[in-house]
Amino acid sequence: MIISERISSLSASPIRKLNPYAAAAKAAGKKVYHLNIGQPDIETPAGFLDAIHRFDKKVIAYGDSHGNPRLLEAIRAYYQSWNMDYGTEQITITNGGSEALLIAMMALCDPGDEILVFEPFYANYNALARALNITVRAIATHAENGYALPDEAHVERGITPRTKAILLTNPGNPTGRVYTPAEMELISRVVRRHNLALIADEVYREFVYGASYRSFGAMPELDEHLVLVDSLSKRYSACGARIGALLSRNKEFCVQIMKYCQARLCCPELEQIGAAALYATPKSYLDGVNAEYRRRRDTLQRELAKIPGVACSSPQGAFYVMIKMPIDDAEKFAIWLLEHFDSHGETVMFAPGSGFYATPGLGRDEARLAYVLNCADLTRAIEILGEGLKAYPGTKLLA
Amino acid sequence: MIISERISSLSASPIRKLNPYAAAAKAAGKKVYHLNIGQPDIETPAGFLDAIHRFDKKVIAYGDSHGNPRLLEAIRAYYQSWNMDYGTEQITITNGGSEALLIAMMALCDPGDEILVFEPFYANYNALARALNITVRAIATHAENGYALPDEAHVERGITPRTKAILLTNPGNPTGRVYTPAEMELISRVVRRHNLALIADEVYREFVYGASYRSFGAMPELDEHLVLVDSLSKRYSACGARIGALLSRNKEFCVQIMKYCQARLCCPELEQIGAAALYATPKSYLDGVNAEYRRRRDTLQRELAKIPGVACSSPQGAFYVMIKMPIDDAEKFAIWLLEHFDSHGETVMFAPGSGFYATPGLGRDEARLAYVLNCADLTRAIEILGEGLKAYPGTKLLA
Repeated sequence: MIISERISSLSASPIRKLNPYAAAAKAAGKKVYHLNIGQPDIETPAGFLDAIHRFDKKVIAYGDSHGNPRLLEAIRAYYQSWNMDYGTEQITITNGGSEALLIAMMALCDPGDEILVFEPFYANYNALARALNITVRAIATHAENGYALPDEAHVERGITPRTKAILLTNPGNPTGRVYTPAEMELISRVVRRHNLALIADEVYREFVYGASYRSFGAMPELDEHLVLVDSLSKRYSACGARIGALLSRNKEFCVQIMKYCQARLCCPELEQIGAAALYATPKSYLDGVNAEYRRRRDTLQRELAKIPGVACSSPQGAFYVMIKMPIDDAEKFAIWLLEHFDSHGETVMFAPGSGFYATPGLGRDEARLAYVLNCADLTRAIEILGEGLKAYPGTKLLA
Repeated sequence: MIISERISSLSASPIRKLNPYAAAAKAAGKKVYHLNIGQPDIETPAGFLDAIHRFDKKVIAYGDSHGNPRLLEAIRAYYQSWNMDYGTEQITITNGGSEALLIAMMALCDPGDEILVFEPFYANYNALARALNITVRAIATHAENGYALPDEAHVERGITPRTKAILLTNPGNPTGRVYTPAEMELISRVVRRHNLALIADEVYREFVYGASYRSFGAMPELDEHLVLVDSLSKRYSACGARIGALLSRNKEFCVQIMKYCQARLCCPELEQIGAAALYATPKSYLDGVNAEYRRRRDTLQRELAKIPGVACSSPQGAFYVMIKMPIDDAEKFAIWLLEHFDSHGETVMFAPGSGFYATPGLGRDEARLAYVLNCADLTRAIEILGEGLKAYPGTKLLA
């Protein structure tokens, strides 16, 4: 049998592909601080398991392809609390934000079509698009100005006859960028001018530190163009539940995706029941988590500033920073840290930067760090990173 | 924004698309006997919820993209009990058999490639393939000879330069066909001669009534060609858990699909924990379920034989029959039964047959019935079907 070109062309996830090295390091007795993956150490609200424990049906039966009605209603009410009206018929439950992205892409693009993104961007956009033979075309943004969008003419140059959608993450992963009203209006104009779709991945909506934030779902002029990708993985620290959602006010979009959703039957029932309960978590939980991430961001930036030659972005949201290191190759360095380095039996793991860029060559000396550990662990992890940089043979001499 | 051609081209699932009519009938106070969907009324073994109740981690964290190690080990041991050796690295956990199919298709076919099936076939194969721009080409099989495969020369004529895989369901859905050793060897020869993949969907493996059954996984000559699709949905009546698996001894296949699996992160953690426990269910459970379905099959056939003009297949496995009815159009009849008919406040729902065929025009007077209800309910449902046929304006006069 022959393996398809589409799957052969996928790049391995920079977030997960080094896992075998981490497993080997752990097997050899090393402690690994994981800054590579956005897996928070925050406790999932107890309501999740409590609701599942109350489930008492005798048959774990297929659910509705659209989603569990209680969860749909909970998400409707959540959006209402953000002053956004989405009817339950405009919400579809998905297997995590990942399946929401997959479905949005297949519903908006045929093979050879393009989705415009701003790099660096969430690495898995590329793999999901390629699996559907969609090309991700990227416009570069830069750490120097906080990954701000370029001007409108520059964005326009990224649009080709094959462009069907713009895909944005707001707040940004890995950039931490929170788009300004001017940037959102720029995007809105371009999307409407070219009759594109806007796929807005807002899974980090609750994680904004100080900046003012607005959802694309609160811009009524985008109603016919907007597809929102959402997930409770980060919001309620329930990444393993794999419950996401796809929202749109475009009626035709909702009708068309249901055909695919019915073909894949439904999402897991128990996790949906737990998810519905999570939306009843008191707002104080989210406020507490927000404050905790803000402390972590500040800790990470403070500790990174102590390492000579390391530049670090200033995220206003989500829980990642991109850093630039004085090294030959971040992936080699990451593997070396796992295979050949330890500081008192401990090492650190990060996601190499190049996987977050579509343009070959970019991001080679960069890394994404997820600040998902408590401040003490973060401090220690960055200390180890600094020691590693001193010892790594590929570190460049600083002037 | 513009909806893609690929999603516009999907047909709605014949199994689920009439759900709005059923919902309306129920809202109007009718009782609906569901023969449309393979949702058994059999109880899920208690081990599923028990294991989930024992889960006591504070964070519902991402799992391994490959699958939960305990579940992988449980599936390895299950295959061992069938005398099939699959290492855990040759098993990948998926979001139901549906995602296993999607991943197998994307890993084996590029846009424009073809998958050969034998019609009637599981309707959702078509939608999943089309979402990936893969063409399902079908060779007809017939109720008259129990949906036996045609001869080798006939099968060969279905192979084109774009054929990348043969996709079989064994035991068959909707046919109930259990392939003979001669048929399996025929398929094996064709697959190897043309260097194709064989995607064998064996989710009904435990549901064989009397016939002798062999898995394609027990044919070592197919090792490099075989991709097994599995699921515990039917095996343990846990359709809503959405836990499936993809198995292959082709090393390159396993390596390539992991890139996609990492991009979609992982399957739901709690449902995997419950699933692992299901595999510890005593064999007597499966024996009891098997005997129950056999009774249901016999009941269904006996009751259907009482209706003039209805022909019914003789399934040896799975839990479906295809029937032929003396009517103009099975979909019209199905809608009419839900909208305009009742027998003492009760009606019946089935899946119209044409959705199980790729060839236009085939299956129009056919239906798939799932015998997933207890014998009393089945008897009543078929009685209603018979009354409906008498009253339906589109029923043809019998000679």
